[in-house]
Amino acid sequence: MYLKYNSFGLIPAIAQQHDTGEVLMLAWMNEDAVRETLATGRVCYWSRSRGQLWRKGESSGQTQRLIEMRHDCDADTLLLLVDQVGVACHTGRRSCFYTAVRDGVEVEIAAPEIDPAALYG
Amino acid sequence: MYLKYNSFGLIPAIAQQHDTGEVLMLAWMNEDAVRETLATGRVCYWSRSRGQLWRKGESSGQTQRLIEMRHDCDADTLLLLVDQVGVACHTGRRSCFYTAVRDGVEVEIAAPEIDPAALYG
Repeated sequence: MYLKYNSFGLIPAIAQQHDTGEVLMLAWMNEDAVRETLATGRVCYWSRSRGQLWRKGESSGQTQRLIEMRHDCDADTLLLLVDQVGVACHTGRRSCFYTAVRDGVEVEIAAPEIDPAALYG
Repeated sequence: MYLKYNSFGLIPAIAQQHDTGEVLMLAWMNEDAVRETLATGRVCYWSRSRGQLWRKGESSGQTQRLIEMRHDCDADTLLLLVDQVGVACHTGRRSCFYTAVRDGVEVEIAAPEIDPAALYG
């Protein structure tokens, strides 16, 4: 499969809950992460901050099971249809996109479901 | 609103159809594009290939009306809930994510709805 990685060898990956359509997060993958995700069916990203493979949920238990991988028309973005166990966000929220701009003001539209102190990784 | 732009002054923006949840595309915005989108309610990206503001649908008519802008927990990705007129993809398909990986093989899962020759921009 041809994918267009950026100059850092990375491609953005959107994770979407497969049945509800909720967009959970965006993270980055390198070629190894793509290969591992397809091989294992468990989503693995590349952590830009830690500079290593990031097996989502490895330490927190909040794993993502891959339902289907898609790419876009110019093969420079991935869409991952996943089944998210628990919460995707390190803040304990289901989705990372919990801040909306309404009437020019940032509004928090979702509360944590899990104490973030109980999560890492 | 604080947003974390990358070293090129850009932030990735996921466009999602607000009522169906379909992920339509991912494109990039700079600060001007974010400001214009919020001011006009019509989605404007930054075209990396053309190096200029890209008012989605300006030439093709396939505009995106902004329903709501959200950002993620670390403010380095935008999620745009939009109402897409016609198709989002320059190939004439509703979504750019029409290629799925199934059993290790790439499969086209959506056909063009519009002759791509009738679209540009």
